[in-house]
Amino acid sequence: MTIHADRPATAHLLDGRGTARMIRAELRERVARLTAQGARPGLGTVLVGSDPGSATYVASKHRDCEEIGIRSLRVELSETATERDVLAAVAELNSEPACTGLIVQLPLPATIDRGVVLESIDPEKDADGLHPTNLGRLVIGTPAPLPCTPRGIVELLRRYCVPLTGADVVIIGCGVTVGRPLGLILTRHTESATVTMCHEETRDISAHIGRADIVVAAAGAAALVRAHDVMPGTVVLDVGITRTEAGIVGDVSADVANTASMLAPMPGGVGPMTRAMLMTNVVEAAERSVAAR
Amino acid sequence: MTIHADRPATAHLLDGRGTARMIRAELRERVARLTAQGARPGLGTVLVGSDPGSATYVASKHRDCEEIGIRSLRVELSETATERDVLAAVAELNSEPACTGLIVQLPLPATIDRGVVLESIDPEKDADGLHPTNLGRLVIGTPAPLPCTPRGIVELLRRYCVPLTGADVVIIGCGVTVGRPLGLILTRHTESATVTMCHEETRDISAHIGRADIVVAAAGAAALVRAHDVMPGTVVLDVGITRTEAGIVGDVSADVANTASMLAPMPGGVGPMTRAMLMTNVVEAAERSVAAR
Repeated sequence: MTIHADRPATAHLLDGRGTARMIRAELRERVARLTAQGARPGLGTVLVGSDPGSATYVASKHRDCEEIGIRSLRVELSETATERDVLAAVAELNSEPACTGLIVQLPLPATIDRGVVLESIDPEKDADGLHPTNLGRLVIGTPAPLPCTPRGIVELLRRYCVPLTGADVVIIGCGVTVGRPLGLILTRHTESATVTMCHEETRDISAHIGRADIVVAAAGAAALVRAHDVMPGTVVLDVGITRTEAGIVGDVSADVANTASMLAPMPGGVGPMTRAMLMTNVVEAAERSVAAR
Repeated sequence: MTIHADRPATAHLLDGRGTARMIRAELRERVARLTAQGARPGLGTVLVGSDPGSATYVASKHRDCEEIGIRSLRVELSETATERDVLAAVAELNSEPACTGLIVQLPLPATIDRGVVLESIDPEKDADGLHPTNLGRLVIGTPAPLPCTPRGIVELLRRYCVPLTGADVVIIGCGVTVGRPLGLILTRHTESATVTMCHEETRDISAHIGRADIVVAAAGAAALVRAHDVMPGTVVLDVGITRTEAGIVGDVSADVANTASMLAPMPGGVGPMTRAMLMTNVVEAAERSVAAR
């Protein structure tokens, strides 16, 4: 009788935390150069209300700014702020030269039209890369700020030298912040991956996962990607977030670490990259304005 | 000894010409209603130079307008027109109430920045649906004018009751006018197809075609889709255009008519639908302005 030990985790870690730390160090040098030229980048944030989650997110962004040398411009509005108040705060940051990038922290109170507020951000200062004009430029191929999570995914794959040209990439989840723009980025001439967009109505997700070189799971469905679906050699990135009683879990079961060749776990994979790309967008906007002088 | 006759063409025709005729008849009624309300739709066109192909395209659009009852507003500029002249023509049509939709016929002379001109069109009057703001709204899911060719493809499939929800759609070609926006339209919640974007760098296009329910060939590569690649039962749409000495040919070989279950040929398939969708965008803009009164 043989005792079968659990197979050890064999997937190489796509370490988002470490990679983001490296990117922040690179950004610190770029910011020092900009500051020496009198063009220090600045991140403006608009926070409405007192949701503790939102306050934590905004605080962590400003901690990143401090580490890198980016100026922080914080606008905090009370829960009773009107759409007009929020639009006025955005307008002020739009016209403030010290602010090279800005975000409005979501969610906004239900009385405020999120679309109207986000469209009011100056597309050149759109640090999240989610302004419709910038997403449209991504469709067309005009340079513009890119959405942070998909950009972070591509950057993480590039830093680990994962081949993208001609790779079969299966994206699960067609959301506005991850899936839809990621498909657009990966099918540009600079990436040239073959991309399949899967979602709730996809008939046989297992079959698609089974033929993929790279799987990006961004559906928000716990354990959607299972070890026996994943071909040996596949690179898997977990971008899903589901809140359970046992805490936050991703879209990828733990045992995928035994079949995938590389794995970006949740947490510790793509999340830190998203934050690093936000900082990158703010720095790049300042670099563009220096180049245009 | 048996004599094998060639198998007869068995694919059901997706008749773009007939469907477009039906749509124009429907539009004629909508235009009559709008005109009775004092809100007759109008198409403005800006044509620069004397390229005979461009002149023919513009003329055919105005023929469609005449048939449907849409007002025609033609601006014709000489080959020596500057970017400023073209921008002035667009600005005039933007502010002209009788113009509910407008297009700038491409190509423009090499001295004129096509991107700058197209971005100057009022997104609400963007009859081609290719303004970056409208493409961005398509990414996000905000209602906006849709690009004519992908919209025509979806409309043709709907009129022939081809199921889209959960269908495996393989799009070949990631261009800005067809492939990229078509992928975005088909992955909306209202369509919910599983979409694979293929292109020159795709490793095994035959394998993707072979597992598809619907194939849209928009690569501009003659005979890219061959009969033996296509599963019986597959719906094939030919949107490619290649100019050869023998005339214009599509991306789909003729013998695909023997294996596909339905076929939109080139010409006579998607082309007429594109023109009908241009008219639809102009009429819908007028209907929106009446609704907003």
